[in-house]
Amino acid sequence: MVMYFYPPSVEELISYLNKLPGVGPKTAQRLALHLLNTRADDALGLAEAIREARAKVKRCRICGNLTDDDCCPVCLDESRDETVLCVVEQPGDCIVIERTNQFHGRYHVLHGALSPMEGIGPAELNIASLMQRLQNSAIKEVIMATNTGVEGEATALYLARQIKPLGIKVSRLAYGVAVGGDLEYTDEVTLGRALQGRLDI
Amino acid sequence: MVMYFYPPSVEELISYLNKLPGVGPKTAQRLALHLLNTRADDALGLAEAIREARAKVKRCRICGNLTDDDCCPVCLDESRDETVLCVVEQPGDCIVIERTNQFHGRYHVLHGALSPMEGIGPAELNIASLMQRLQNSAIKEVIMATNTGVEGEATALYLARQIKPLGIKVSRLAYGVAVGGDLEYTDEVTLGRALQGRLDI
Repeated sequence: MVMYFYPPSVEELISYLNKLPGVGPKTAQRLALHLLNTRADDALGLAEAIREARAKVKRCRICGNLTDDDCCPVCLDESRDETVLCVVEQPGDCIVIERTNQFHGRYHVLHGALSPMEGIGPAELNIASLMQRLQNSAIKEVIMATNTGVEGEATALYLARQIKPLGIKVSRLAYGVAVGGDLEYTDEVTLGRALQGRLDI
Repeated sequence: MVMYFYPPSVEELISYLNKLPGVGPKTAQRLALHLLNTRADDALGLAEAIREARAKVKRCRICGNLTDDDCCPVCLDESRDETVLCVVEQPGDCIVIERTNQFHGRYHVLHGALSPMEGIGPAELNIASLMQRLQNSAIKEVIMATNTGVEGEATALYLARQIKPLGIKVSRLAYGVAVGGDLEYTDEVTLGRALQGRLDI
């Protein structure tokens, strides 16, 4: 007796969707059926958008951020402060920082953090171009805005050790309680750091 | 001052991913960056799989299930019992039922359930072909295996009313407690149904 399975083309689609981060077999199945049932424009549009992005998107040759051009708009913008550089792990981090409207300098995107466990050393990150960029530049301060987990912290410390000998100031985002957050829900490590870094009123 | 945003091709990709069910703006962003960073084979393979599935997959002209051919393998398989028909909402439901190894009849896939709220009436579902299939057929029993929510129940009742006048038996999956499940975690409606439908030991 023949058992019913999805046709090969659907199985293929499910297996590719299953490779996406956070997408398990059940979700992959649901997404595949959605892509088959939704308007052709939406499904084929997604396929085309993947191709298009893979073909067009490059890394800015100065900061490493994602761009469709040779250089990203921030690196080309002469009105931005060229004396302050903010180092982040991912392109998305720049966007979050931009939204604060508190930073007017330039960025450098590492595309990850040091992680010996996963075999990610300095050579795997966008670090060589950072060190080159700092040589004979107008940059006076580098702000480390890597994530605050073990890997982000290790990356910030590693870079600080490389950068300080160049006579450039290296700083780190302040640790503390979230604005509008309840103390009750703040973890004790963060709260400890917030106490250490307490501010005069 | 220029603000940094994702380049247009990335924004485009994010907006298409954001249209997938259960994918919010944050997840769409994460998936887009993954598709840009992962192996080209995986990203372009997904794009190709979407195109391929959209181009190839049809509905079986007999049961409405997904197939790459004119007819699905189950409908073509003469060793399957042609006197019992199982009506399901989605192609995935057939696969779950196949896994039980308890059903050897044929299927009919509705591709949804009646939902007046969403404007889904009988004409929007694969019902006309079901009624036609039942005329002058060898089918003696139709098992309703629609979902047990309001819409699935309404669909089963609606179809039962259409099918019974043809002199065909209509049944419904049994309601009851899950095998291996704790009574404590069974909702009271299900438990009530399990009591009503209690079995002799």
